[in-house]
Amino acid sequence: MQAAADPLSLTLSALADPTRRAILARLTQGAATVNEIAEPFDISLPAISRHLKVLEGAGLISRGREAQWRPCRLEAGPLKAVDGWIGKYRKFWEGSFDRMDAYLHQITKGDGRGRKS
Amino acid sequence: MQAAADPLSLTLSALADPTRRAILARLTQGAATVNEIAEPFDISLPAISRHLKVLEGAGLISRGREAQWRPCRLEAGPLKAVDGWIGKYRKFWEGSFDRMDAYLHQITKGDGRGRKS
Repeated sequence: MQAAADPLSLTLSALADPTRRAILARLTQGAATVNEIAEPFDISLPAISRHLKVLEGAGLISRGREAQWRPCRLEAGPLKAVDGWIGKYRKFWEGSFDRMDAYLHQITKGDGRGRKS
Repeated sequence: MQAAADPLSLTLSALADPTRRAILARLTQGAATVNEIAEPFDISLPAISRHLKVLEGAGLISRGREAQWRPCRLEAGPLKAVDGWIGKYRKFWEGSFDRMDAYLHQITKGDGRGRKS
């Protein structure tokens, strides 16, 4: 139904999987080989490799050039793009809280006094 | 391949589409009917309805109960969950910047002086 995904959609789609998010969490501690990444998971190496391919395709990880030891590294760029996108909504829900604060202030102070008179 | 998705995966998957993100952006301006939402898009009403169903399934929008006029509203909860998740990575790339700052400070000050002597 859809043509080639835009970069943000590609990133969000790659992140929409708990195993792939767990792999990214692992890589915040430093570069790791496929075997090191696979260790804590109860999944086959080919399945891990498929997940890494999706993450690499979305630019969320990069891989070293060395044939045998190809360490995976976390790349922050696409995550920053998601953060930038969601930042616009942060204002939205912070705004809701501000309005809620003002409302609570009003009903506990202004309206309370009104009822007493 | 995967069982029922966890809430965060469900949210990220729903967000991984430019039309659905545009619908959410529209709803930051207030509740809207399906027809109002569909207006700026060159997509059929049934296609818009399918997108709304995905957003509703992920809890990103809610819909009024009124049979004819069922306004859609943006729900901030799932977006806040994504923001909370990405917050851990924000520390990661801000940390990288801190290290970069320290490095730049070092090469422009410490190392520069070293070369002079």
